[in-house]
Amino acid sequence: MTEAATGRRGRGGGGAARRAARSAVSFESAPVIARNIPNFDMLGPEALEIIEANAETVLAEVGVNFVNNPAALDRWRAVGADVQGERVLIPRGLARKLCATAPGSFVQHARNPERSVEIGGRNLVLAPVYGPPFVRDLDGGRRYATMDDFRNFVKLGYMSKWLHHSGGTVCEPTDVPVNKRHLDMLHAHMTLSDKPFMGSVTEPSRAQDSVDMCKILFGEDFASNNTVMTSLININSPLTFDDTMMGALEIYAANMQACIVSPFIVGGAMAPVSVVGTLTQVLAEVLAGVAYAQLVRPGAPVIFGAFVTSIDMNSGAPTFGTPEASQILYGAGQLARRLGLPFRSGGGLCGSKLPDAQAAYETSNTLNAALLGGVNFMLHACGWLEGGLVASFEKFVLDADQLGILHRIAAGVSHDEEAQAMDAIREVGPGGHYLGCSHTQRNFQTAFWRSDVLDNKPYETWSEEGARSSQQLAAVRVKKLLDTYQQPGLAPDVSEALAAYVARRKAEMPDAFV
Amino acid sequence: MTEAATGRRGRGGGGAARRAARSAVSFESAPVIARNIPNFDMLGPEALEIIEANAETVLAEVGVNFVNNPAALDRWRAVGADVQGERVLIPRGLARKLCATAPGSFVQHARNPERSVEIGGRNLVLAPVYGPPFVRDLDGGRRYATMDDFRNFVKLGYMSKWLHHSGGTVCEPTDVPVNKRHLDMLHAHMTLSDKPFMGSVTEPSRAQDSVDMCKILFGEDFASNNTVMTSLININSPLTFDDTMMGALEIYAANMQACIVSPFIVGGAMAPVSVVGTLTQVLAEVLAGVAYAQLVRPGAPVIFGAFVTSIDMNSGAPTFGTPEASQILYGAGQLARRLGLPFRSGGGLCGSKLPDAQAAYETSNTLNAALLGGVNFMLHACGWLEGGLVASFEKFVLDADQLGILHRIAAGVSHDEEAQAMDAIREVGPGGHYLGCSHTQRNFQTAFWRSDVLDNKPYETWSEEGARSSQQLAAVRVKKLLDTYQQPGLAPDVSEALAAYVARRKAEMPDAFV
Repeated sequence: MTEAATGRRGRGGGGAARRAARSAVSFESAPVIARNIPNFDMLGPEALEIIEANAETVLAEVGVNFVNNPAALDRWRAVGADVQGERVLIPRGLARKLCATAPGSFVQHARNPERSVEIGGRNLVLAPVYGPPFVRDLDGGRRYATMDDFRNFVKLGYMSKWLHHSGGTVCEPTDVPVNKRHLDMLHAHMTLSDKPFMGSVTEPSRAQDSVDMCKILFGEDFASNNTVMTSLININSPLTFDDTMMGALEIYAANMQACIVSPFIVGGAMAPVSVVGTLTQVLAEVLAGVAYAQLVRPGAPVIFGAFVTSIDMNSGAPTFGTPEASQILYGAGQLARRLGLPFRSGGGLCGSKLPDAQAAYETSNTLNAALLGGVNFMLHACGWLEGGLVASFEKFVLDADQLGILHRIAAGVSHDEEAQAMDAIREVGPGGHYLGCSHTQRNFQTAFWRSDVLDNKPYETWSEEGARSSQQLAAVRVKKLLDTYQQPGLAPDVSEALAAYVARRKAEMPDAFV
Repeated sequence: MTEAATGRRGRGGGGAARRAARSAVSFESAPVIARNIPNFDMLGPEALEIIEANAETVLAEVGVNFVNNPAALDRWRAVGADVQGERVLIPRGLARKLCATAPGSFVQHARNPERSVEIGGRNLVLAPVYGPPFVRDLDGGRRYATMDDFRNFVKLGYMSKWLHHSGGTVCEPTDVPVNKRHLDMLHAHMTLSDKPFMGSVTEPSRAQDSVDMCKILFGEDFASNNTVMTSLININSPLTFDDTMMGALEIYAANMQACIVSPFIVGGAMAPVSVVGTLTQVLAEVLAGVAYAQLVRPGAPVIFGAFVTSIDMNSGAPTFGTPEASQILYGAGQLARRLGLPFRSGGGLCGSKLPDAQAAYETSNTLNAALLGGVNFMLHACGWLEGGLVASFEKFVLDADQLGILHRIAAGVSHDEEAQAMDAIREVGPGGHYLGCSHTQRNFQTAFWRSDVLDNKPYETWSEEGARSSQQLAAVRVKKLLDTYQQPGLAPDVSEALAAYVARRKAEMPDAFV
């Protein structure tokens, strides 16, 4: 992982880069979660085998559509699929066989090599909310997101100890033309943070911009031979692969950049109203998508994605933190592990309009399922509000704080002699107390996870301090983090080259707002 | 389970009782959760064996105190324990051997036999918050609890679909003298609800009142031969059994009434600052307490309890929903199953002063761990606020709603032909939608769990309806439930006999407020 640094310095940073790095404030950042506890396997082997067999039937007899993409149809034809119009019927076993060249785990490099992450295996990598056109904070309420908001979220992500990844479209900067905003977003991730990030997928040319900017940031050689982005490719469920998303996937796969191949399902609308039926469709879609990535370039890193909500069948609104969503998450994790692929699901998902109790119930239900369900890459881990329409500043720091709990649980339980604490039990004895005993003195500073934002003070103290709700406490923390933010160092020539690239590309295009 | 009804009618309810029952409103009430999913075993066998061996060492070499209780010391002496003063040193294996007569599962009868619950095995029984001296609601804020509050909580519990049990001290009615309030509390559970309930433990004579009132409610014969109460016996951790709690346990065990034998631990103060050390002490305490109940009466029903919080080592405040609390819950569940006893832990625990995001994060963390950790009896399942100092009306209905999620997850995932939904996937095909397909038409009404209180409407609708927070929505639901409450029928002679008992016992005692 030191190659990334070498690559960067090698291409010209030199002494200036090192001086910049030394002068930057260093924030504590936890390493990715390496689970030391079992996964929770909710489904039995019989159910899993039925799902796997049915998914093959779906691929062979129902098929998938690759829309407006003759090259994709050619690729499928070449490996023996039965292509009828835009419909691709994939013979039993073919997609699974093609998936075999996808790595079970891969490293996504960050420009700061200490922040590089390995995605897969027993690891859990946490990334922030993705996609909301609105933001909300306590003072400003709900409003369209701007590039300033975007930069603030990137800063918060950089400063969040438990967040490993800077994410992608943490909010949609609606004040920048649609066809140019990916440039500003990438530039923000690259310059305001040194954590790994995601590339643009809204147009193949924007994926290419992402690749080209990474070549500036990491150096041409390094970026050409290593995975430096993980990008989100949604499948247009049911069973449809559109040309925009596939165009981006083709560019990323060809460049050995990672893609999350992710069915996007509002249950009951885009998949059957049953857990096993939904899992069957999810598996069929992922098999087809991952196989296609391997057709583009065998060995291209991919992630088995599953974004599945429930639905309120009366209003049609998607719902989050529901039992069915948890069941699907657990089942999809088992299917991903049986396929040997990294797994993406979960997040701090909720339908609430405010960062209130509803938001937190729904979020915690999802976070807990994602931890035990074996998620390897968790997008939307913090900041998600209102079904993903809103990125909430307060919820970002509240959720990010909860992510510390996932780290502690995943670390497992030590049973070494110090953890057994028999000396303490003997020392204290019946009716005593442990506050002052020597075992406590040795261990209390690390014994318990501590929240950085929630209030555990006595009622009277809390009252005197203004009787603040979690949202108010979170607003204080947002301000404090943004006030103390300091930009990580970056070699001046890299910084200049990135700025120049953005300026040149913007100048080449007229503004487009749709 | 029809015996309870027979017993009641047999002792004189007759036609009047049946008429009263017919005229009462019948509320939908879910049966206890029968888990159809695996438990999550977080600890490995090596850690569990170490804990079990160390717990035996604690009992044999450190011992436990039975305070101010010569009869208990005699009982221990008689089975070969080494009694030194009030300290009881229990030879290795003795406590575990004595525990063998405790049933692995038992039925607690309700006066409505449809509400009787089996506690143990794969079941999960949900009971409300226990113990708070304060209540909070949106209009009245935080204030001392009264008997009116108590009655309202019993009514809410009765009307909560997902709650199986009426609980015990849902709040402390501070407007009734300490030595008389148990009479009013029992009377409320017996007359305002027909769900199972808990007895008083604050004095042996109050436990006896509980037994005597049950003989009126259930009939003398029935109550003498069946378990009709499950009561909470806290151990004064570390390793101390006080005479008040043991006095209550002795009465309940002698009458074949169930006791939860429950270490009460603020981590770091009453147990070592390590998960395995705490579990060792918990196991030692439960072994001693359960063994003692079996010494009083072999076969007396008991529950392995574990109430363990973390602590903020700076302020000394207990903290909830933390990773350490979850780890201890998971480990204690494994130890209880290895011992073959029903397990009590979990609940909607939180430290927050308001029913806000903090409360809900902490609550959900605990509820999720309790579900997967194999809890059989969950006290504090709803309404708990501020570390148990406050019973919150709004949180009661918010939590009670979340309990529906536990039911759905525990039911497991069907993989029968209808659940496989292959007809739906074939019917809809790539690019279609499932909203109108025949599989959806057949299944949508039961496909997804629905919240009865949270808001999943579109932002605009929610805005027009007043942009209400979860707390505000919950306040509306509290009012609606209380406004529509109707008392379950009870035979008039039973009702009169209960009232007469309460009046007589109150007249026998001067008021006491401490």
